[in-house]
Amino acid sequence: MAPVPRLAAQRTMECPPWLRLERRVRFGDTDAAGVIQFHQLLRWCHEAYEESLERFGIGATEIFPRPDWRMAPPPGEPAAPDQSQPALGIALPIVHCSADYRRPLVCGDQLSINLQPRQLDPGRFEVSYRFDCGGQLAAQGLTRHRAITVADRQGCALPAAIRSWLEASGAHG
Amino acid sequence: MAPVPRLAAQRTMECPPWLRLERRVRFGDTDAAGVIQFHQLLRWCHEAYEESLERFGIGATEIFPRPDWRMAPPPGEPAAPDQSQPALGIALPIVHCSADYRRPLVCGDQLSINLQPRQLDPGRFEVSYRFDCGGQLAAQGLTRHRAITVADRQGCALPAAIRSWLEASGAHG
Amino acid sequence: MAPVPRLAAQRTMECPPWLRLERRVRFGDTDAAGVIQFHQLLRWCHEAYEESLERFGIGATEIFPRPDWRMAPPPGEPAAPDQSQPALGIALPIVHCSADYRRPLVCGDQLSINLQPRQLDPGRFEVSYRFDCGGQLAAQGLTRHRAITVADRQGCALPAAIRSWLEASGAHG
Amino acid sequence: MAPVPRLAAQRTMECPPWLRLERRVRFGDTDAAGVIQFHQLLRWCHEAYEESLERFGIGATEIFPRPDWRMAPPPGEPAAPDQSQPALGIALPIVHCSADYRRPLVCGDQLSINLQPRQLDPGRFEVSYRFDCGGQLAAQGLTRHRAITVADRQGCALPAAIRSWLEASGAHG
Repeated sequence: MAPVPRLAAQRTMECPPWLRLERRVRFGDTDAAGVIQFHQLLRWCHEAYEESLERFGIGATEIFPRPDWRMAPPPGEPAAPDQSQPALGIALPIVHCSADYRRPLVCGDQLSINLQPRQLDPGRFEVSYRFDCGGQLAAQGLTRHRAITVADRQGCALPAAIRSWLEASGAHG
Repeated sequence: MAPVPRLAAQRTMECPPWLRLERRVRFGDTDAAGVIQFHQLLRWCHEAYEESLERFGIGATEIFPRPDWRMAPPPGEPAAPDQSQPALGIALPIVHCSADYRRPLVCGDQLSINLQPRQLDPGRFEVSYRFDCGGQLAAQGLTRHRAITVADRQGCALPAAIRSWLEASGAHG
Repeated sequence: MAPVPRLAAQRTMECPPWLRLERRVRFGDTDAAGVIQFHQLLRWCHEAYEESLERFGIGATEIFPRPDWRMAPPPGEPAAPDQSQPALGIALPIVHCSADYRRPLVCGDQLSINLQPRQLDPGRFEVSYRFDCGGQLAAQGLTRHRAITVADRQGCALPAAIRSWLEASGAHG
Repeated sequence: MAPVPRLAAQRTMECPPWLRLERRVRFGDTDAAGVIQFHQLLRWCHEAYEESLERFGIGATEIFPRPDWRMAPPPGEPAAPDQSQPALGIALPIVHCSADYRRPLVCGDQLSINLQPRQLDPGRFEVSYRFDCGGQLAAQGLTRHRAITVADRQGCALPAAIRSWLEASGAHG
C-alpha cells in the first residue's frame, strides 16, 4: 500500500476518532416551536463527553459514580485498568456551562460534533463542543469541570485517566 | 366556631390535600407536534408522588437517597422524625408503569392531578394518577413500587412512613 | 388610602411577585452523583420565565406556539387580551444561555428563584436567574432571547406583552 | 464452511437490522439511587422507534412534524420518496404506554434493544421493546400509536410508509 502522505496523517491527528462524534436530532428533543429545546443541547454535550472518554478507552466505571452493588464493570467488558487505585473518590462536577444557538435544528437533522477538551489548571478542565449540520455551524456548547473529593467536596487534582485524555486531545487542538 | 357539617367533612375526607395537586403544562413539556411528549407524563407522576408525600408530612430525606455528605435535612427544615430508624436502607424502585392519553395537552394547560395510592402486599404499592384539564379526563398514569434493601437489593417490608401515607390515603379511595 | 411608607414601597418594588418564585428539587432532577444534573437548571430557568410571564398576566397563548386546533385559551381562562393582534407570528428563541453552579443541590432542597429580565435592544432581551437555597447562593442562570418572525425567521421587534413585562421588571432591577 | 442450517437462517430473518439496536446508558439517565430514572426508558423506546424507521428507510421528514420553513429534507439527504403525497397530514400520537423493570441499569451499561412492531387495526399499531444487558432481560417497554388527521384529530388509516415497516417487521415476529 502507498505510504500515507504526511499532511493526511496530520489531518487525521487533528481529528482523532474520540473528538468527532455523530448524533441525530430526535423527535423528543424538539418543542412546540418545532426546533430543539435549548437545554437538550447541554445534555448532548455531556453525552458527547461520555462517548469521547469511552472511545478513548476510559470506561464509565472509572469516572462516573455507580452504586456500591454495581462497582464491577458492565457485563462482558474488562475491569477498569486502575481498579486498584480507582478514581471514584473523585467527582468532576460541572461548575459552569454555556451554549450559543446559530441555526435552528429540527427532528431528523444529522449532527457532527467536534470536541475540544482543555486543561485549565491542575484541578479543572473544560470542553468546547461544536455542532455542525449540513456543513454549517449550528450551535456551540461549553462545560467546565472541577475535580473534588467525594468525601468532603474539596478541590483536588484531576484523575490520571482524565489527564491522559486531555493531553492526547490537546495535541490536536 | 361552628361545627363542620358532616357532608363537608366527608368531601374533605374524600380528597385530602395531599392527594389533589395542580400543575401547569410548560413549553419544554411539548414536542414538535405541539402536544406533550408522552413520557413527560410519567415524570409528572413521580413529581406528584413526591409532592404528595411532602404534603402528608414525609420529607424527601426520609424516602429518597441523598449523598452521605448531605444526609441532614434541607436548610431551615426539621430533621426527619424517624432519624434514629431511617428508612434510607430501603429503596422503592418502580417495577412497572403505564399511561393512557385521552386528550391532547398543550403549553399553558392547567391540570388537576388526583392520586390514589394503594398497598398491594407487605412489600409493594402502586399509585394511580388522574390528570384532568378543564373538567375533563386528559390522561391517566400508574407507578408500581417495590421495597428493597439498598445493600443487597432483596425484597423487604415497606417503610413505616410509606405505610402511614398509604393507610391515610386508602381511607379516601 | 393611607400613603405607603417609602421603605415598604421600595421593598415591594424591588421584588414584585412575578420575579420571585419557589421550586423544590425533585428526585428526577438528580443523577447518580446525588446532585442535580447541570442541564436541569436551564430547564428550571425556562419554566421560571414562563411562570413569571403568567404571574405578570401574560398567558402562554400570547407567547408560546400552540397547534392551530388549540389556539383558544386553556379551558376556564380568559382569551388573550391582544387576540386581535396576536404576538404569535413572533417567536422568541434562545440564542445564548449559561449557568454557574456554586453549591450542590440535592433532592428535597427548597429553592428561591429571583429573575432579572432586561431588554438589550429593540429585538432582544435576557433574563438572569438567581437560585438560593437556605439563604445562600446555589446557582445562577442566564437566557438570551431574540424576536423573529415565525414565517421567515428574520429579526423583528419584541412583542408588546414582553416589552411591558420587561419595563415593569426593569424598574425593580 | 458447513451450510448454515435452515433454523439459523430463520433466526437471522427474525432479526432484521432495523429491529435490533444498541444503546449505552449515560450518566444523565440515572438518578440519585444510582440507577436509571424509570421514565427515561420510555424516551429510549421512542428513540428506538425513530431509529428503526430510519434504518428501514423512512426518513423523519416522512413521519414527524417539522416547521413549515423546514419541510425540505435535512441537508445532504434525499427528499422523502412520497413527497408528492406526504404523510404529514397524519400524526401518530401515543395513546398508551407501559414499562416493566427487571434488573437495575447503571451508567455505562450497554443495552441490546429488540423491537417488535405489530399492526392492531387499520388505524393503530403498537411496538414492544425488549432491553437486554449482558445477555439478560433488563426491561420491557410498549408504545401504542393511533393515526389521526392533524387538521381535525379524527382517526384515519395508517400512512403507507408505516404499513410497509409493519409488514416487513411482522414477517420476523
